[in-house]
Amino acid sequence: MNSEEFRQRGKEMVDYIADYLDTIEERRVTPAIEPGYLRRLVPDEAPQKPEQWEDIMKDVEDKIMPGVTHWQHPRFHAYFPAGDSYPSLLGEMLGNGLGCIGFSWAASPACTELETIVLDWLGKMVGLPEQFLSFSENSKGGGVIQGSASECVFVSMLAARAHTIRQLKKQHPFVEEGVLLSKMMAYCSKEAHSCVEKAAMMAFVKLRILEPDENQSLRGATLQQVMQEDRAMGLVPFYVETTLGTTSCCSFDNLAEIGPVCEEFGAWLHVDGAYAGSSFICPELRGPMRGIEYASSFNFNPNKFMLTHFDCSLMWVRDRFKLTQALVVDPLYLQHSYSEKSIDYRHWGIPLSRRFRALKIWFVVRSFGIEGLQKYIRDHCRLARRFEAHVRKEPRFEVASPVHLGLVCFRLRGTNDINQKLLSSINASGKLHMVPASLNDKYVIRFCVCRQTATEEDIDYAWEVIRQFATDVQETKPEIIENYSQVQSHPPSFRYQSNQRA
Amino acid sequence: MNSEEFRQRGKEMVDYIADYLDTIEERRVTPAIEPGYLRRLVPDEAPQKPEQWEDIMKDVEDKIMPGVTHWQHPRFHAYFPAGDSYPSLLGEMLGNGLGCIGFSWAASPACTELETIVLDWLGKMVGLPEQFLSFSENSKGGGVIQGSASECVFVSMLAARAHTIRQLKKQHPFVEEGVLLSKMMAYCSKEAHSCVEKAAMMAFVKLRILEPDENQSLRGATLQQVMQEDRAMGLVPFYVETTLGTTSCCSFDNLAEIGPVCEEFGAWLHVDGAYAGSSFICPELRGPMRGIEYASSFNFNPNKFMLTHFDCSLMWVRDRFKLTQALVVDPLYLQHSYSEKSIDYRHWGIPLSRRFRALKIWFVVRSFGIEGLQKYIRDHCRLARRFEAHVRKEPRFEVASPVHLGLVCFRLRGTNDINQKLLSSINASGKLHMVPASLNDKYVIRFCVCRQTATEEDIDYAWEVIRQFATDVQETKPEIIENYSQVQSHPPSFRYQSNQRA
Repeated sequence: MNSEEFRQRGKEMVDYIADYLDTIEERRVTPAIEPGYLRRLVPDEAPQKPEQWEDIMKDVEDKIMPGVTHWQHPRFHAYFPAGDSYPSLLGEMLGNGLGCIGFSWAASPACTELETIVLDWLGKMVGLPEQFLSFSENSKGGGVIQGSASECVFVSMLAARAHTIRQLKKQHPFVEEGVLLSKMMAYCSKEAHSCVEKAAMMAFVKLRILEPDENQSLRGATLQQVMQEDRAMGLVPFYVETTLGTTSCCSFDNLAEIGPVCEEFGAWLHVDGAYAGSSFICPELRGPMRGIEYASSFNFNPNKFMLTHFDCSLMWVRDRFKLTQALVVDPLYLQHSYSEKSIDYRHWGIPLSRRFRALKIWFVVRSFGIEGLQKYIRDHCRLARRFEAHVRKEPRFEVASPVHLGLVCFRLRGTNDINQKLLSSINASGKLHMVPASLNDKYVIRFCVCRQTATEEDIDYAWEVIRQFATDVQETKPEIIENYSQVQSHPPSFRYQSNQRA
Repeated sequence: MNSEEFRQRGKEMVDYIADYLDTIEERRVTPAIEPGYLRRLVPDEAPQKPEQWEDIMKDVEDKIMPGVTHWQHPRFHAYFPAGDSYPSLLGEMLGNGLGCIGFSWAASPACTELETIVLDWLGKMVGLPEQFLSFSENSKGGGVIQGSASECVFVSMLAARAHTIRQLKKQHPFVEEGVLLSKMMAYCSKEAHSCVEKAAMMAFVKLRILEPDENQSLRGATLQQVMQEDRAMGLVPFYVETTLGTTSCCSFDNLAEIGPVCEEFGAWLHVDGAYAGSSFICPELRGPMRGIEYASSFNFNPNKFMLTHFDCSLMWVRDRFKLTQALVVDPLYLQHSYSEKSIDYRHWGIPLSRRFRALKIWFVVRSFGIEGLQKYIRDHCRLARRFEAHVRKEPRFEVASPVHLGLVCFRLRGTNDINQKLLSSINASGKLHMVPASLNDKYVIRFCVCRQTATEEDIDYAWEVIRQFATDVQETKPEIIENYSQVQSHPPSFRYQSNQRA
């Protein structure tokens, strides 16, 4: 394909995308297909000869689209929003159009420098303390774009591990590092995302999972007690992961209490604000950030609640040298990373190469402005409260946890089984898509405001669908049970209970 | 921005990208700026109010472009190619347009199923044994798209680590895992990419770096000897990383020799073909794959040598359960991963969420066809041989290593210092961009054919530039020395010696 054909096909693709989003309501929110559907539709072998573009695009509509779950659909209320907006799309287009790789400053200086700048912009926008910003007076901090919150959690754990091992080596120079490692303890709440457990697995460190309070918030006293126990046992508490906006119900760990405990034990405090972090752009929503000044690292995902496409998880550290020391393999190069002159972001994460991801953030922030982003977030909060009001109006339903931001956890008063049937039958109908969570052993249904341009009508429509299916399920109509049993073969809604998030 | 404005701005962006690539020669291949240039051009704070799109795009041209290293420029011969083509661009556009997240099958079935299918296509295209394919009779293997070769190497090491720890636990149930870990040894060649060292650091395992032969190829006898030594010392050899197409000179480790050694010691054999892997689409270039049947895992990057945008590193494993067992945190869910019914790719890598990356591969393979991709690869090989011929024609130059695929390592006969001056002065001029490598302690210059549509004229032009600067440097003109000292402040070319690759 030459540039002339690209000019044509690219413009057709722009229209295809715009048409897709303009008419998305005409599609079923979740596909009505079984695993293996696509394999039956496409050849087992790649084509020897070039194919016509028309044929490829025909297959997109005929073969791919029937298998797509439409995350931008007005009836999609599952997981969390998948960040999406036109300026972000244009940023992705341009970044790919340039086709440059930013693994070091010199590999493409603009790629690195814009990243540092937008991370400072965003850090200020959410009210991060100066210590996390790159350009503040004698700050050792800085920000970086990671691919996902999972990577942020993992690399922060690696940084804490490397730092602690160095400390322990000083005290016990003759003890094998593997033995030192086996004494180190990390901590998180039962409500923390499963990526924390995965990170501990990858980092080969022990993770102790703690009980949050009745509002799914991890408290300082709980943490202090177990850290003291462990220290008394000769173990070394070195890392604490906290969440602002948990996956199951958007609860907030109590940073203000936990921070001082981490300081007392010299443990690295990471704060994962993947979903809720974007909301701190609104000053009135910053309450949960109290204590952030104790954090060693913080991340949030514009690809969730700030209209930016995946992959885009922003991470800030208070001491960038502690991070890079855990990831730089070349001492000579380490010195260069220390220099104030330039940043080589490949020493800030797992992969070396990096796309020009700062462009899409830059486009989003400039196109919407801080006020535009605040309006988007406040609209979603308002719509969630509208949904909550619907639930509270009907005695047969209950709101299952305090409502925060765009997420409402609710259930039918009654057994877990009937709620499971309710959700399964709704999902099977393709009229709405939601996923469940488990709160204090109760099966609850998560309703998340996802669509960028969600309206009051979308909320009211969703509630009507839920009410109807609730009535059907309560009267246990046979076809519902049938749907239900079909849907059993879709584990994700189950798995989601233990905090898999988008 | 509404869909109407997107239709306009998106089409303008398509033209901007096409114009950029059509006229890229008018730009300087590397930017003439100093670190911190962009900070002086943009505000310290994000804008409160929305900005006009025209103003944003004006800043792209005035502020971003002057800081971009143009990887698609005909004078760019550094690192390796950054995969780029119009069908790939369209695939990225569509994937982002759909804005879906594929962390489980149900989260977007087409996203998962197309990935499995294209991985089978590509596996067959490069001649992988059946055991690596998903759909072959009773195969336990399968393929996945990872973000980078670094991730492929790291997760393969994690899989090997988890498997070995399980084995050792059976023999020594009462020994602390940290102690078992401290006995485990991984191996790679001195010419392996630095991401292997990084992976060992992250996985907390010991890595022994071995001497390759005079052609930078790791040999079986070398490996066997050190593994025997280590085993005699009570250590446990568990993982070997080999490279097909090393970063410095595109040398190939000797799989046919190494494979049986790994089998003898029960060690996991990972084969990193990041750059060279794409060339195996051409049957006549598959010689280095001899022994691939011994591999536990293999990866190559279409985002290097197969016209596909970053991020796109393809990884195949012979036993997908060994991989997922190292990454799945939920036993209940593990069972589901075992089921033949559907794949949840989040258990195959570090992040949970994933973009719809299979689309760009599908578009590239179908638009070019296998024959189109073979032609592209053969053209690059032919052009590299043309450059080699130029070098051999001039007695003052020498070819520094056997030429493979699109890469030629050469140098002026003489000191490392004069070659360093030659490269630094060329890079400072902005007329060409190349990076160095170190082979047998000799400073050599890497010339890589990078541009998709590279021509004989591009090669001849590059050689003319090199010859002129060589003459200048040999006459050590003062301004050259000046340029040279300026360029000392650009570490990447230095760092590249120890195998940082794009």
